[in-house]
Amino acid sequence: MGRLLVLLLLGVLANHSVMAQDGFHWKVSTTDGSQSRNVWQVSSRQLFRNCPHAFTIRKERLTGGRQEGVDLITVNNGRFTITVCPTRGMGIMNVKMGDLELKWDSPVKEIVNPQFVNLSSRGGLGWLEGFNEFMCRCGLESNGHPGTDKFINNVGDEAEMELTLHGKIANIPAREVHIVVDKTPPHAIHIKGQVDEKLLFGPKLELHTDLVIVPGSTSFQINDVVKNVGAQDQEFEMLYHANFGSPLLEEGAEVVTASKKVTPFNDRAAEGLDNWSVYEAPTTGFVEQVYLLEPKADQEGVTTALLHNKAKSRGASISWSVKELPYLTVWKNTGALADGFVTGIEPGTNYPNNRSVERKAGRVPVLKPGEARSMSVQFNLHGSTKSVAKAIDSIAALSMAGEGVDEPAEVLELQEKR
Amino acid sequence: MGRLLVLLLLGVLANHSVMAQDGFHWKVSTTDGSQSRNVWQVSSRQLFRNCPHAFTIRKERLTGGRQEGVDLITVNNGRFTITVCPTRGMGIMNVKMGDLELKWDSPVKEIVNPQFVNLSSRGGLGWLEGFNEFMCRCGLESNGHPGTDKFINNVGDEAEMELTLHGKIANIPAREVHIVVDKTPPHAIHIKGQVDEKLLFGPKLELHTDLVIVPGSTSFQINDVVKNVGAQDQEFEMLYHANFGSPLLEEGAEVVTASKKVTPFNDRAAEGLDNWSVYEAPTTGFVEQVYLLEPKADQEGVTTALLHNKAKSRGASISWSVKELPYLTVWKNTGALADGFVTGIEPGTNYPNNRSVERKAGRVPVLKPGEARSMSVQFNLHGSTKSVAKAIDSIAALSMAGEGVDEPAEVLELQEKR
Amino acid sequence: MGRLLVLLLLGVLANHSVMAQDGFHWKVSTTDGSQSRNVWQVSSRQLFRNCPHAFTIRKERLTGGRQEGVDLITVNNGRFTITVCPTRGMGIMNVKMGDLELKWDSPVKEIVNPQFVNLSSRGGLGWLEGFNEFMCRCGLESNGHPGTDKFINNVGDEAEMELTLHGKIANIPAREVHIVVDKTPPHAIHIKGQVDEKLLFGPKLELHTDLVIVPGSTSFQINDVVKNVGAQDQEFEMLYHANFGSPLLEEGAEVVTASKKVTPFNDRAAEGLDNWSVYEAPTTGFVEQVYLLEPKADQEGVTTALLHNKAKSRGASISWSVKELPYLTVWKNTGALADGFVTGIEPGTNYPNNRSVERKAGRVPVLKPGEARSMSVQFNLHGSTKSVAKAIDSIAALSMAGEGVDEPAEVLELQEKR
Repeated sequence: MGRLLVLLLLGVLANHSVMAQDGFHWKVSTTDGSQSRNVWQVSSRQLFRNCPHAFTIRKERLTGGRQEGVDLITVNNGRFTITVCPTRGMGIMNVKMGDLELKWDSPVKEIVNPQFVNLSSRGGLGWLEGFNEFMCRCGLESNGHPGTDKFINNVGDEAEMELTLHGKIANIPAREVHIVVDKTPPHAIHIKGQVDEKLLFGPKLELHTDLVIVPGSTSFQINDVVKNVGAQDQEFEMLYHANFGSPLLEEGAEVVTASKKVTPFNDRAAEGLDNWSVYEAPTTGFVEQVYLLEPKADQEGVTTALLHNKAKSRGASISWSVKELPYLTVWKNTGALADGFVTGIEPGTNYPNNRSVERKAGRVPVLKPGEARSMSVQFNLHGSTKSVAKAIDSIAALSMAGEGVDEPAEVLELQEKR
Repeated sequence: MGRLLVLLLLGVLANHSVMAQDGFHWKVSTTDGSQSRNVWQVSSRQLFRNCPHAFTIRKERLTGGRQEGVDLITVNNGRFTITVCPTRGMGIMNVKMGDLELKWDSPVKEIVNPQFVNLSSRGGLGWLEGFNEFMCRCGLESNGHPGTDKFINNVGDEAEMELTLHGKIANIPAREVHIVVDKTPPHAIHIKGQVDEKLLFGPKLELHTDLVIVPGSTSFQINDVVKNVGAQDQEFEMLYHANFGSPLLEEGAEVVTASKKVTPFNDRAAEGLDNWSVYEAPTTGFVEQVYLLEPKADQEGVTTALLHNKAKSRGASISWSVKELPYLTVWKNTGALADGFVTGIEPGTNYPNNRSVERKAGRVPVLKPGEARSMSVQFNLHGSTKSVAKAIDSIAALSMAGEGVDEPAEVLELQEKR
Repeated sequence: MGRLLVLLLLGVLANHSVMAQDGFHWKVSTTDGSQSRNVWQVSSRQLFRNCPHAFTIRKERLTGGRQEGVDLITVNNGRFTITVCPTRGMGIMNVKMGDLELKWDSPVKEIVNPQFVNLSSRGGLGWLEGFNEFMCRCGLESNGHPGTDKFINNVGDEAEMELTLHGKIANIPAREVHIVVDKTPPHAIHIKGQVDEKLLFGPKLELHTDLVIVPGSTSFQINDVVKNVGAQDQEFEMLYHANFGSPLLEEGAEVVTASKKVTPFNDRAAEGLDNWSVYEAPTTGFVEQVYLLEPKADQEGVTTALLHNKAKSRGASISWSVKELPYLTVWKNTGALADGFVTGIEPGTNYPNNRSVERKAGRVPVLKPGEARSMSVQFNLHGSTKSVAKAIDSIAALSMAGEGVDEPAEVLELQEKR
């Protein structure tokens, strides 16, 4: 492409972007008074004369049914395609690298605008009416099971409120959505969003998220900051609800983790404890089994959990710091394909009990006024037998490390059930 | 119109329609990724050189207040005009044939986007905040009175949830809305919609509706299919809540039915049993009276219910198969005009008790995995004394038929009241 | 500007406005079927050849996050700028005259579309998730604290429902929004809106509001009419929740009122009774103190409440008729700036107890069928020491008037607490 054309294109872009010192910067959705753009796109060819890995970024607005007005951002980094939904709290709808897809087939087929979701419905399970992301956040004020918990009301009294399943954050549209492309190679793409969970007489929590996608890479990373912008101590909970379905999830698929302890969530999970890490085929009427893990980490505190198919030829792994997210929940929900055959691998600040249970167990972190907590989660796509084997090896190394011997799985006192 | 012009118009249309083998086909709203159209219209003259009955079809998007973003489809078939609201579960807002109108004057004046309706509010009566259709469906997971019922929650336990009045389906926007016009005379117009009531740990029910309007006819027909796309048995309920107000409804107006049994819904209804089929003038403070009927049908299973004015010069009737919809509810709510003077004639799979009551009575159908249930309801406009008389005669014939003698009205055990 | 140009401009305007006998009239948002306008503006120069005080009126539609689709109308009358939000029940977001601003810094930063607000959440405190107006109305069916109250349900029985904090009206989009500019000087600007709170088996209440802004003035007036368009008696409640934050509100700021009686809302308020009218500095963890006043009025029934800063150099006052709004609530909520440092000065038909409490106390007005109640509230901006002093004097005159002696503050039986 001729230099002139590049300059012309950059000229056009200059109208719509801030050329920050370190990269290109577009506000694709904002509440600052300037107009958001319903459709927008850019490609590596428009930005750089020589780009080792071509990429495209596209924002669109969905129409029809309950997805009217939903924004999506799709990035193709030359290796995989990833779709983010700012309208649903910056969740990740799906990731696709050839025949390896990070997604599941939820009974919910639309990408539902939170306008149509009543979290309080179905006894606090209304969250399920929009739930079909590959990865959504659960929090911030609370996550986990619905049910009664205490709070301080406007007149300073301790009162009770009904927490709803997995909190609000996945159903709050991001108020700012910016896209940044680094000027220097490897030209990392940043999908940045701010989601507020703030109100008078309630939490003043902000989620600042930065999804980093490096062109040509087979990984992507979420760098989140949760900040208490209020003047008083504030509890919060965060769980990264990553969901995997067919075909990666199949009979004989396995979740590989390094853990000090595996605790079944309830009696039902206890039934399957002996074989907890291996998946069954889709089984009509299967009742979910949930396992609570304390992951082992390397010297930097990093642990990894991997899901691979039966043949160990395809997999996806998640790496994070246990200093940030000390707990891991594995959700086995291998019902029929038509009912939502899925497993969740869910690093979190806590387990998905009702917050009242987690508080008693000391697993609800508190942010001081002005305090921020960083949490990073890296997702890795394993598209070959070799790549899967390498991930298995590195997790095995974690299992060997630490306390010298791998502690036996131990059943904690059973968690409170709904 | 010259042949060339027709060809040109067809050329234009070809860009927007699929010329299916048997007709013209437009996706006017879809979630398949292609853009929905806010405004769209077509007329018989654009499609056919010679059309015995001219018709027009128009889609528009409403603005203002709580109707912002609501879609309407209006068909004029040469005899009557009918307006359908995809955003409100494919309900029918009103029908107008000269001075005969199928509609009522609800206190709700806007066509309310479900985004603004909280079904749980007012003790489960939030549905009323958007209720002003001529005909809306009640269901699918449940319909009828709000109140506690059991369900199976995510951990496989029997839990309780608060059902809300008449369920969700009238407040779920259709995810697909297609219009089809048959290529062959009489060029029937089909308004097709799909409405999903599906979620993990909940029902996986789809409503596929086909509203068929034949140009030049004074009838229209709803052909619905409710399908359980889940892998487990699923209860459902469906009630066609057809509502008639002034001027068709007036003092001395009468509902004519063929029924084996008429049961008052409660003590209040029992007070009016002697004269249950005749309407009073608008009466301030009138408390609703509800009658539960078991309709008699002809040999094909078809029954008809008619509402006519006092003079028997105008009427509307509904015909359906009691094999599909065995129960009929007549709702007399003849309060003041300003308060919503209305009667409902409501064929259903059940009566509008809370589902827990209907289940005990054996009136909640269950769909097997993959099973679909068809339900057709035909509405007929009677614009003359002759047409009303004919309808009365045909219903009289039904009353004579069947068990030989018309069973006396019998009071079943009173239904559970809220 | 030449006469010709004026005529041309008027010609353009004629397409979009109705030249009413007494002024210009624009429907900026309507549900009558004509399209609403997302962006629209007009200025005095376009309307009048010689206008003593230039003004501009602008309507815009917000985008991004939870403010997607929110309409704002901003008027600059040559002295101050005022912003009204039709989407949030015609509330006033803020007013700005130089360094005097009527506003507060709520933790909620977006102007939240009611589509995203669930009033029932947080134990009935969901209203707080959108609360950041300078002035919002609380009502109409009820206002005040959430909690159980009785109502008559569809079958005529007394049933219970959970009232939600401050009712619905601030979260109902106006169905009609018209702007009128008087033809004759001083060319008063009217922002008119209609907000419906109507449903079958519920209230049939309409709010008709007229916000009057005179170019060049430092006051503006709300003229509201609440009408019962139903055929039966209907209770209603109305509270004008005017909220003031920093910098007008500061340590040593004071609320000046003429009142017969000051009653602390609860024990917490009783603690601060001695110094109830003076404000503390932002205090982390401050628990709200609420005082219930019976204002004294002049012979026409008009009373005034003033908030001034410590230096008595800036202030804002509210004047209204105690015949229309007999009660005044002062809400001191001087927590940390980051937590929503604010005071509310709230004339009302009642105090903000749960409606069940207010009903027992005889403070819930009832509208007969067709009856309308007018309520006018005037807001005055005091931008100088002189203007503040004048307001203080006029309120002092009220305190002297009336029963001759100012009754001592008296503690009524404590109000029921949540």
